[in-house]
Amino acid sequence: MIDFIKELYPICRSITGNGVRETLNLINRHIPLKIHEVPTGTKVLDWEIPKEWNIRDAYVKDSSGKKIIDFKQLNLHVLNYSTPIRAKMSLAELKPHLFSIPDKPSLIPYRTSYYAENWGFCISHDQLTSLHDDLYDVVIDTDLSTGNLTYAEYYLKGKTREEVLISTHICHPSLCNDNLSGIAVCTYLASALSKTRPHYSYRFLFIPGTIGAIAWLALNENGLKHIKYGLVTSLLGIDSIFTYKRSRIGNAGIDRIVEHVLSLQDIQYKIIDFIPYGYDERQFCSPGYNLPVGNLTRVPFGEYPEYHTSADNFDLISDKALNDSLAVFHEVIRHIEADRKFINQYPKGEPRLGKRGLYDNIGGRNDSKILQLAFLWVLNYSDGEHSLTDIAMLSGLDLSIILEATDMLKEKQLIK
Amino acid sequence: MIDFIKELYPICRSITGNGVRETLNLINRHIPLKIHEVPTGTKVLDWEIPKEWNIRDAYVKDSSGKKIIDFKQLNLHVLNYSTPIRAKMSLAELKPHLFSIPDKPSLIPYRTSYYAENWGFCISHDQLTSLHDDLYDVVIDTDLSTGNLTYAEYYLKGKTREEVLISTHICHPSLCNDNLSGIAVCTYLASALSKTRPHYSYRFLFIPGTIGAIAWLALNENGLKHIKYGLVTSLLGIDSIFTYKRSRIGNAGIDRIVEHVLSLQDIQYKIIDFIPYGYDERQFCSPGYNLPVGNLTRVPFGEYPEYHTSADNFDLISDKALNDSLAVFHEVIRHIEADRKFINQYPKGEPRLGKRGLYDNIGGRNDSKILQLAFLWVLNYSDGEHSLTDIAMLSGLDLSIILEATDMLKEKQLIK
Amino acid sequence: MIDFIKELYPICRSITGNGVRETLNLINRHIPLKIHEVPTGTKVLDWEIPKEWNIRDAYVKDSSGKKIIDFKQLNLHVLNYSTPIRAKMSLAELKPHLFSIPDKPSLIPYRTSYYAENWGFCISHDQLTSLHDDLYDVVIDTDLSTGNLTYAEYYLKGKTREEVLISTHICHPSLCNDNLSGIAVCTYLASALSKTRPHYSYRFLFIPGTIGAIAWLALNENGLKHIKYGLVTSLLGIDSIFTYKRSRIGNAGIDRIVEHVLSLQDIQYKIIDFIPYGYDERQFCSPGYNLPVGNLTRVPFGEYPEYHTSADNFDLISDKALNDSLAVFHEVIRHIEADRKFINQYPKGEPRLGKRGLYDNIGGRNDSKILQLAFLWVLNYSDGEHSLTDIAMLSGLDLSIILEATDMLKEKQLIK
Repeated sequence: MIDFIKELYPICRSITGNGVRETLNLINRHIPLKIHEVPTGTKVLDWEIPKEWNIRDAYVKDSSGKKIIDFKQLNLHVLNYSTPIRAKMSLAELKPHLFSIPDKPSLIPYRTSYYAENWGFCISHDQLTSLHDDLYDVVIDTDLSTGNLTYAEYYLKGKTREEVLISTHICHPSLCNDNLSGIAVCTYLASALSKTRPHYSYRFLFIPGTIGAIAWLALNENGLKHIKYGLVTSLLGIDSIFTYKRSRIGNAGIDRIVEHVLSLQDIQYKIIDFIPYGYDERQFCSPGYNLPVGNLTRVPFGEYPEYHTSADNFDLISDKALNDSLAVFHEVIRHIEADRKFINQYPKGEPRLGKRGLYDNIGGRNDSKILQLAFLWVLNYSDGEHSLTDIAMLSGLDLSIILEATDMLKEKQLIK
Repeated sequence: MIDFIKELYPICRSITGNGVRETLNLINRHIPLKIHEVPTGTKVLDWEIPKEWNIRDAYVKDSSGKKIIDFKQLNLHVLNYSTPIRAKMSLAELKPHLFSIPDKPSLIPYRTSYYAENWGFCISHDQLTSLHDDLYDVVIDTDLSTGNLTYAEYYLKGKTREEVLISTHICHPSLCNDNLSGIAVCTYLASALSKTRPHYSYRFLFIPGTIGAIAWLALNENGLKHIKYGLVTSLLGIDSIFTYKRSRIGNAGIDRIVEHVLSLQDIQYKIIDFIPYGYDERQFCSPGYNLPVGNLTRVPFGEYPEYHTSADNFDLISDKALNDSLAVFHEVIRHIEADRKFINQYPKGEPRLGKRGLYDNIGGRNDSKILQLAFLWVLNYSDGEHSLTDIAMLSGLDLSIILEATDMLKEKQLIK
Repeated sequence: MIDFIKELYPICRSITGNGVRETLNLINRHIPLKIHEVPTGTKVLDWEIPKEWNIRDAYVKDSSGKKIIDFKQLNLHVLNYSTPIRAKMSLAELKPHLFSIPDKPSLIPYRTSYYAENWGFCISHDQLTSLHDDLYDVVIDTDLSTGNLTYAEYYLKGKTREEVLISTHICHPSLCNDNLSGIAVCTYLASALSKTRPHYSYRFLFIPGTIGAIAWLALNENGLKHIKYGLVTSLLGIDSIFTYKRSRIGNAGIDRIVEHVLSLQDIQYKIIDFIPYGYDERQFCSPGYNLPVGNLTRVPFGEYPEYHTSADNFDLISDKALNDSLAVFHEVIRHIEADRKFINQYPKGEPRLGKRGLYDNIGGRNDSKILQLAFLWVLNYSDGEHSLTDIAMLSGLDLSIILEATDMLKEKQLIK
């Protein structure tokens, strides 16, 4: 996944524009995306689609002609969504447009100005304080004009229309953990799933944060009823604690499953209740939708020092962390797939397993076999109330043995 | 409040009679009471209003003519509700009518005999054991005859008829903590509230214990449906732990609010489940009413050594304790007032705060402002299920910031 | 009870046959059983009644004519439900029919083969390894043929048809703790109860494990609706921890009561959630019945080293343990009997206890009597929702005082 992130890293993404399109084209090499373009000005819920932003270049030259700030060196240097400018100005005039982080003086911040037109540059505080008065040549060569907002879906049809939604944001430029890790894990997860024939349908969203989720919700209201489980994700590249933030519902299927899966791993994790800020779960869990969507990350946004700075780079993330994250997602999906209910066809007393070849014949022994326990658990709790995942949780048996027992019981027509 | 208690202290209160009337007249100087007289013999639930009791004097003189027990020195000396007597008798005849506390030999007990006609005196055990045989002149100059039971209400109309009931008993004579502290705090609280225009209506009851509550319930059954929150209180003058006893319902609004308020204070407190003895919550929470009424005191009745003795005097209570108690009541009322629900007018996705001037324009920053968090909490949970107080509890934000955010959201018509 | 167990111990019980009948005859001397015979081949749920098994003798002689394995020495020596055999064979031919416990080499195992026809002997592993090749004379003189499955009920009619079910298995041969302790405690409990006139009806089942429970359920479906509480029991003879396994319902009356009773005793105990293996609660709690039936034992099956071996003998059990177990059952039944609801006839406010002679007349005292507290608890919670047992649990008062208060309140017509 690191190699995939290396391809994605240089692209200057924003909430609209060609950076998003290039990103989606790279994802499309792994999974067949359906790409949507939503025209500027389209009303979406309480919002409207903003202008499309594209950037060709941006720099500041000092009076000697030396580029002292250069977008082409690092795309974080430009205030994301900057209006165009081409002017000569003094340091005093330039300074209100320079953004830095005084207490992390060596790092370049990532800043945006989507909904108030502005221009600016982001630089290290060390550089900011070293600037002296001069006549600076300031160029931001951008377009901010009527166009589209672009997002993509990958939909994998399962045996039922009931749907698992997995959403990640794609609007951040050269930041490795905060959003490229999410894009990479979601792409690899979708790719692996595409090789299976799952029970549930899966919908992966690659969308710009906030406005992308709002646009998607506005344009897909009719389909929301199919969503049975959902996860918003990102921040999967640091080898740190896992963090699960519950859906607003609090005890939805996705909440029970992710908590169970995390508890089974030999990892550190924490579970927090829903709070109405964070990533796009804010939109999916707004009270008018209240979808069963949680948020699964490693260390949460804002809680690591490199967050939204130039230090969110390849020194921060690792292939091990990405693979561990992917493994947890696979395990979550394994439990979602098993979150289905069967009905015991012999609910009164235990059916006789022995005559169906499902039971040991020499009784009285103490070493009951685990598969025989699994038969009893699946039979007793296949009551229309409990799914196989519920039974795995109740019994403490591994899901694999529950699935194996289920297959054998189905074959013998003991459950349906 | 200490000065107010000093005015009230000398009065010989009982469950009926002029002591109650004098007490109510002193309260009436602070808040306009509505005083009710219920005639002797009136049937109230399973009870009937007893005779009215008034006392002019009571003493025991020894054969030398010396008053060895004197009601005018301390009104606890007379068994409260004593029948009249005027007789000469030996120590042997007198002794069955003398009450003391053997294991607190220096203290004079407070004793009553409301529902079995009797006469008697309360003295220290030291005095009791020092008495020698003599011919005693015993005088109790009381009336126990047809009259009235007196109680008072202070009703403050709010914007809604939904009502907060606060009740304290007024039937104890010269005891500072056990009932004068309650009278003082309720009076000052009512007086402060009367200067506001609250959302809820407030009803303060100043009633004799047990029979007063029973009379009030019997005479006001139609109004009980308006009671949404209630507290019985007293014992607020000792600088000790706060104690909250839950309503019989157990998780009523008043229970959630008082528990939350106590948890926010830098104080010691304990929460106990409803038990069917104590003060007048016994009546309000009887199963036929089951009102949402809890009991808030400092150290509970019977759990401090001076309880119902002459030591429940000005050495025991302090202005600091009274003020701290009053402050907790004010905080409870602040949270009750905010226990109202609004409805998010844009429940699908987040409404766009920026275009309404409610959001920072330079995004990507880590230091989200607390007011902006409050906007999100109020918007997300203004779903018709959660009150502002609930949202304060859920978010961990101070109620003040929730109220501030609510006002701004209301002004922008984002919530109703 | 030890003497009763000594009578029962030598009998060779199985799931069918005369061993069961002899056992029931011995129980019948204590309590009048109704004995049922269910013919071989009868369909019961998913099962059918197996052939009846009877044994006269079984042994293995070596070539010198010496009985080296002798059923008459210990009936565990024969594989329970063995088919008949009469043959001479080599050690190699005999060995597949010899059962031992390699890691408990001195103990003889208890083994059965009910549902796959087979023959065999159970011996110590020490003996097994000491056998040398020889021509063995192998005799198992059994019948396995059309007959009956035998079980018994003792039904004690109470004031209501609502029923308490107590079930123990009777199919194990010479094992003291695993099943004779259960038979003895149930018999003594039933005998003691038969001398009372209980509120609830009691049904004691003495049944072969699994097939007995399945037969009883199949033949008594109409009566199941009367079962309000139930316990499956056995393993009551070892002086060890008590173990309560909840019903599948999890919070049924029986669960609350047993947990409360265990918490009151000065004993060690543990509570576990329902699991679908163990004793006949497997059948009673199958999803099609889901009866309120828990399982109460001392140390559970399989969790003591002597389980299902020749060491489950008189060295293992004690009269003290049996008596302690019986005492817990009596206490459970005392709480079941009190699990009845009364209705306060004066639910508004407290009824006036004083005028009914139920209250002290000199008020103000701190030493409220416990019986008066009990009056208040019973009155306040006799609301149609709470039983006397619930009130004992809520109040922390002993059930005896609650019952005493209830009787007095009933007599005064304050509750019904």
